[in-house]
Amino acid sequence: MMGDKRSSGDIRPIGVVRTTVTDGIDEGWGDVESRIEIDPELADGLRGLDEFSHALVIFLMDRSTFQPASDLVRRPQGREDMPLVGIFAQRAKHRPNPIGVTAVRIIGMQGNILRVIGLDAIDGTPVLDIKPYFPQFDAPADPRTPEWVVTLMERYF
Amino acid sequence: MMGDKRSSGDIRPIGVVRTTVTDGIDEGWGDVESRIEIDPELADGLRGLDEFSHALVIFLMDRSTFQPASDLVRRPQGREDMPLVGIFAQRAKHRPNPIGVTAVRIIGMQGNILRVIGLDAIDGTPVLDIKPYFPQFDAPADPRTPEWVVTLMERYF
Repeated sequence: MMGDKRSSGDIRPIGVVRTTVTDGIDEGWGDVESRIEIDPELADGLRGLDEFSHALVIFLMDRSTFQPASDLVRRPQGREDMPLVGIFAQRAKHRPNPIGVTAVRIIGMQGNILRVIGLDAIDGTPVLDIKPYFPQFDAPADPRTPEWVVTLMERYF
Repeated sequence: MMGDKRSSGDIRPIGVVRTTVTDGIDEGWGDVESRIEIDPELADGLRGLDEFSHALVIFLMDRSTFQPASDLVRRPQGREDMPLVGIFAQRAKHRPNPIGVTAVRIIGMQGNILRVIGLDAIDGTPVLDIKPYFPQFDAPADPRTPEWVVTLMERYF
């Protein structure tokens, strides 16, 4: 069963995000429209995706940094009204692996281009994977979060 | 703004999955209990995660393969009753980048160990990231999927 395992070092972008947003922002992503340009060799892999209303986009936040001393435990968005929590208990981009995962609405697809709304990634962001949104994988029945999450996210999307 | 960008080739495991499941299976994951062992140097990053009911686990399906000729467009689980769809329109592990994303229930946390239910990853799977489940990122109001998804997922979890 061992064989030639694939390694995390083998991960390569499959495409890129194109949008007018060029700087990381902490609000207003819900109205942002983006184009995901998939490597033309992989374009056939999109077949049938437009029968789904939503997709998960897995992307590389390649302009972010991670400094353990300041980022392993931090206040979300550096806000004084937020608690000190670990990086694995928040969605900040300052992560050991700068991988973003966001559920977006699909609004169009043609050739190797997927058009989506609500992707919180700046122009030029490498895309690592696209998955159809399956409620069976992605939507637990009764998710519970601490109160600070509601405050933090008030204007993000 | 360019500076030293982080590259996909810099991605490294932050931990590993421990479970009694050692072979990929296509059903019954919903009852599987797993332990995620985080690199002890990163254990502080879990602080506060146990205030969430669910987490997204991002993992590397390192025993999977990807052959464009057979995997770019395929029938989910190789089933004759499934349509021919692109790999980005299905959740199969035979992906260009073998990254898995699954929402799991958190049942315990101690030191560098996170205990979860419903993680569809075999023993020894490298973990790339853990994120708290935020409905604002992860739960769109009205996801729609084609009919075949319901049939495919009947016994998966």
